[in-house]
Amino acid sequence: MIDLKNMGALAKNATVQLGSLGEKKNQVLQTVAQVLVANADEIIAANKKDLLNNKEMPKKFVDRLLLNEERIKEISNGIMKVISLPDPVGKIIKGWKNQAGLQIEQTSVPLGVIGIIFESRPNVTVDAFSLCFKAGNAVILRGGKEAVNTNKTIVKIIRKALLQGKVDPNAVQLIDDVSRETAKEFMQLTGYLDVLIPRGSKALIKAVMENAKVPVIETGSGVCNLYIDKYADKDVAIQIAVNAKAQRPSVCNAIENILIHKDVAQSYLPDLIDALIANGVEIRGDKEVLQVTDKQIELAQDSDWNTEYNDYIVSIKVVNTLDEAISFINKHNTKHSETIVTNDYARAQKFLAQIDAACVYVNASTRFTDGYEFGLGAEIGISTQKLHARGPMGLEALTSYKYIIRGNGQIRK
Amino acid sequence: MIDLKNMGALAKNATVQLGSLGEKKNQVLQTVAQVLVANADEIIAANKKDLLNNKEMPKKFVDRLLLNEERIKEISNGIMKVISLPDPVGKIIKGWKNQAGLQIEQTSVPLGVIGIIFESRPNVTVDAFSLCFKAGNAVILRGGKEAVNTNKTIVKIIRKALLQGKVDPNAVQLIDDVSRETAKEFMQLTGYLDVLIPRGSKALIKAVMENAKVPVIETGSGVCNLYIDKYADKDVAIQIAVNAKAQRPSVCNAIENILIHKDVAQSYLPDLIDALIANGVEIRGDKEVLQVTDKQIELAQDSDWNTEYNDYIVSIKVVNTLDEAISFINKHNTKHSETIVTNDYARAQKFLAQIDAACVYVNASTRFTDGYEFGLGAEIGISTQKLHARGPMGLEALTSYKYIIRGNGQIRK
Repeated sequence: MIDLKNMGALAKNATVQLGSLGEKKNQVLQTVAQVLVANADEIIAANKKDLLNNKEMPKKFVDRLLLNEERIKEISNGIMKVISLPDPVGKIIKGWKNQAGLQIEQTSVPLGVIGIIFESRPNVTVDAFSLCFKAGNAVILRGGKEAVNTNKTIVKIIRKALLQGKVDPNAVQLIDDVSRETAKEFMQLTGYLDVLIPRGSKALIKAVMENAKVPVIETGSGVCNLYIDKYADKDVAIQIAVNAKAQRPSVCNAIENILIHKDVAQSYLPDLIDALIANGVEIRGDKEVLQVTDKQIELAQDSDWNTEYNDYIVSIKVVNTLDEAISFINKHNTKHSETIVTNDYARAQKFLAQIDAACVYVNASTRFTDGYEFGLGAEIGISTQKLHARGPMGLEALTSYKYIIRGNGQIRK
Repeated sequence: MIDLKNMGALAKNATVQLGSLGEKKNQVLQTVAQVLVANADEIIAANKKDLLNNKEMPKKFVDRLLLNEERIKEISNGIMKVISLPDPVGKIIKGWKNQAGLQIEQTSVPLGVIGIIFESRPNVTVDAFSLCFKAGNAVILRGGKEAVNTNKTIVKIIRKALLQGKVDPNAVQLIDDVSRETAKEFMQLTGYLDVLIPRGSKALIKAVMENAKVPVIETGSGVCNLYIDKYADKDVAIQIAVNAKAQRPSVCNAIENILIHKDVAQSYLPDLIDALIANGVEIRGDKEVLQVTDKQIELAQDSDWNTEYNDYIVSIKVVNTLDEAISFINKHNTKHSETIVTNDYARAQKFLAQIDAACVYVNASTRFTDGYEFGLGAEIGISTQKLHARGPMGLEALTSYKYIIRGNGQIRK
């Protein structure tokens, strides 16, 4: 049995040095970027073992697991991007003098020890480390069992680079016991983990939300909606629908439902449906949609409106009013990303104000909900909760703050 | 059995209106402040019932439970202070244009539905409502069983005022079933509660951390430390020690331990100990302290250094170095408030940088860790976790944000 409390204590211990590394963090990250490429052969050999152990896996999972020289270079380039970002630690967020004359400063600090629990993609191992490290945190990783050899090799190489740079190697640790019991114990490592971030399937995130006793940031699950208003430009609506559904349907920011105002249903739906089908999308519709189209499409079931397909499937519904669209979305969405297509100012404003989601768009594709597209320079995940961080999380989401208070003998009256 | 899911749904439903009330929130709060005073007799009658039901309670708990006309006026004045604070909702925190030309705005929004679980003080009922309401949230309260009649009456009166103001009365709901089972179910009301904030004893907070499946903000518990450096001014050190321990020992920002540098132990300790004893403080000391003083004081046990006494007791320890003081504090504290007394610049800077706590002071009493003293104008609690909010939490801590993104047809490449 792996000693998680000991790992937690080692990580906590490492945070003392990590919190004050400053500019040195970038030098160390540079070394890590280099040694990963320099040791590509060793990583690929370990990855081959994992691929062999998982021969029966569906093709799309094999592709997620696979590392080759090119992909390792990409991963290394990802570190270089993190290096180029400003240090999120040590910023004075606010400052003021209180009545007693104390100088109060709210200063950004690392969160401390971050736990990441994730599935097959081994690039997450490096991404998560480099982001957590840049924000001054120690990270404990628990990857999927499919990638355990790859992850062990990668973490070994990173730890060696840290040692070379005279940084506590416990800045990154891997839980290589991939049992469920250990995962559960990890979720309950109170007193050591300042936050646990799950990255992966709905089932994984649900298990974390159910079992965790440490603070968690819920990420990912996305039932996103497009509403085509009666004042929508037809071409814009179709272009956004196709992009938001079919450009990459496997990701959380792709849409699952399209709502369309009844006044434009007859004139827009046939072309919209044609365009979606031409892009390989299977359509499910409510009764009104079925009446308008001559295509053979399935009747949408109640469950369809709540389903994240991660696939080339979309459900379409005709609504009578903007209000109906808003309350339908607030009922069925997962608080991720929603968009309206309209040329009406007041209706756009109403949608922006009343939709409850991390990202609310007017006349744009939901596919932009992404740390890189937003311009955050990086992304550790997309939060669908409201506490701490919401939407795409960059380096700032990996920090907390503390208050620094300078006085000259003040006591409370 | 009370239907918590239904209460959650009603609260959620209320958030739609609450999120866009704007200036009206202050009018409604004003009405609430008036009707509480106007109905003081009814509240006092209910409070008398509670006092009768809890005749056996220790005197200090009786005092916490007691309401009289003067206290109701104070509570009402508290609402007037909340009215005077700026609206925390609708602020544009940041804004920029991304590469695709999208205008991205990060805007403050209410958290949504807030759960508060608290113990005997009935003033929390009003305070929590007024702060949550001002920040546009619906709140579900679960108070202690001692105050159930008082709380029911207060919430009934507030709901009536909300109705008068044409605001959904489900902006505030009280769980009047005070069983443990219901409390546990409340902590697990996933999908309805955006955050749960416990306010009360260590045992209550622990129970919430153990059982909750919704996002929680851990509050309160405070093992705070004072370190008297070798470059400390003696008078300032003694003045801060007495204030931080004895001005109000029952609160979380009072100190429990005093560390003193060995170089000044002999010259400072006798007067420090005299001053503390003169203020009614019982002292426990390590061996070195016992050697210096001629007073009969107890030897501190290992457990003393981790104990929040909430009483006139303090433990004193002699340390050899600043580093020893820092690592001792980081090991034993609850990440609440710590202070150093020193006239040395570099040592002050080191302490500020390396101590891991919500509030780190130089030459000031830890008793300032408080929303009002900080100048936040209000306080819903003091967070001892790093996620979302740290230290005194004012109105801002009761908000989240959403991204509003305006485009003109952008799709992702």
